[in-house]
Amino acid sequence: MILINGTLTDEASARIDATDRGLLLGDGLFETVRSHAGVPFRLGAHLARLATGAKRLSIRLPLPPDQISGAITDLLHANQLQRAEAAIRVTLTRGPGPRGLAIPAESQPALLVQAVPYTPRQKPNVTAVVVEVRRNEASPTAQLKSLSYLDNVLAAQEAKSRGADDALMLNSRGRLACGARANLFLVLEETLYTPPLTEGALPGITRAIVLELAGAAKLRTRQSPVFPDDLMRASEVFLTNSLEGLLPVSEIGGKKIGVGEAGPVTRSLMEAYAGLAANRS
Amino acid sequence: MILINGTLTDEASARIDATDRGLLLGDGLFETVRSHAGVPFRLGAHLARLATGAKRLSIRLPLPPDQISGAITDLLHANQLQRAEAAIRVTLTRGPGPRGLAIPAESQPALLVQAVPYTPRQKPNVTAVVVEVRRNEASPTAQLKSLSYLDNVLAAQEAKSRGADDALMLNSRGRLACGARANLFLVLEETLYTPPLTEGALPGITRAIVLELAGAAKLRTRQSPVFPDDLMRASEVFLTNSLEGLLPVSEIGGKKIGVGEAGPVTRSLMEAYAGLAANRS
Repeated sequence: MILINGTLTDEASARIDATDRGLLLGDGLFETVRSHAGVPFRLGAHLARLATGAKRLSIRLPLPPDQISGAITDLLHANQLQRAEAAIRVTLTRGPGPRGLAIPAESQPALLVQAVPYTPRQKPNVTAVVVEVRRNEASPTAQLKSLSYLDNVLAAQEAKSRGADDALMLNSRGRLACGARANLFLVLEETLYTPPLTEGALPGITRAIVLELAGAAKLRTRQSPVFPDDLMRASEVFLTNSLEGLLPVSEIGGKKIGVGEAGPVTRSLMEAYAGLAANRS
Repeated sequence: MILINGTLTDEASARIDATDRGLLLGDGLFETVRSHAGVPFRLGAHLARLATGAKRLSIRLPLPPDQISGAITDLLHANQLQRAEAAIRVTLTRGPGPRGLAIPAESQPALLVQAVPYTPRQKPNVTAVVVEVRRNEASPTAQLKSLSYLDNVLAAQEAKSRGADDALMLNSRGRLACGARANLFLVLEETLYTPPLTEGALPGITRAIVLELAGAAKLRTRQSPVFPDDLMRASEVFLTNSLEGLLPVSEIGGKKIGVGEAGPVTRSLMEAYAGLAANRS
């Protein structure tokens, strides 16, 4: 089953309007949320980010966040995921519109929610490569989890074709922005670095949690530009996203990072993060 | 009526699968084609560009180009557009897929064709502004008319909110790439300039025709980087796209270009272009 504007619908018969601007122009947003035993993790933060993005794009949310949240609980039950690990995807589009780019004065936005069983990766670490496709930090869409996601699709595909698990994306200035489906962190000279949002990084929910946890642990943290050379000098590198949490990177472009497995900073942050999820907090 | 994978369908009941990657990830392509009295102009070039893009993205065309072409003729008749001016949009998506960015090994691409009456703008010239949203020339998607089109939507919206008809987009190096829905040309020191594709310009069908016509007219043409200052020094500026042909730009950011109306080079190219359309060649 999936939810369309709050109504449970059989996925096989669920259809989107052929004139929907989400389909025709990538004009919309999405969120990916991990659910543990029927409880979506940090759903409030995801729906707040969705609402912020919708405001930036002047798309009206067809349901208020608390009703979306309630409908997600219904969906998890309908799909028998109330005791399972699940991946939830919330998709908001501007809805149908006439031909052309101009944003229609009146619109009927569409909100789609999908929930499927989630199986974590079996590997404790991932390999990565720096890909050719670059992140456009000079567009407002770099800060939005928008439906115009083809750059990320191509980045992930390029990594796969080069034999790596994940892609690292440079921005237009040749500095690191993020992964194809993750934010990027590295430990260098006992400091935790992550590219600032202005470098083209998405304001990741897990990114924000990790920065909080690092602050609470009195780790020195810096949101400052990260250069490709920094990756090679780093003692630890990890990726973050809402489905996978923290993902240690064991090698980049064939070169081992640190000892080739999660280092002490990564491990302590992973433990703290797992604690949050276990406490559903 | 619209066409879905070659079959005529009532638009009100036409629906796209909710798991279509075109919708969820902007994973697909489109073409916009002008039709004069039932004859799509340069349809062959548009379908060739679509096929090239599909190959780049490894999306299989669900119908061969000649069948798409035949189906478009049927659609124009079904919509009683065989004697009218019409805008045709061909949309190709990778089709439904499981959660995540990874391109599925097997896919069922969807091809959607829409055709609506087209009314040309009533203004002989357009005004433009250089917008904040930049073109990502360092992505393969800059060369593709992809469904990930939100940057262009935002560029057009920014222009409108600033009181202009059209948007001019810089690339990440601060040089002119294109319009939000057009290629860009300018006349400077008796030479016709347009940004090369490597600057982030889409390989426009009308752009190619204009370059051909300029060559045939022995105009000096240069595909070389164009700087914002060049716009102010230009004696003529025009935009090109498949629906509107050549669009003279009368002012940019409030400053008049040349005499504020189509100059001699623009006029002669507009005449030659109108001749092609009249001869359906």
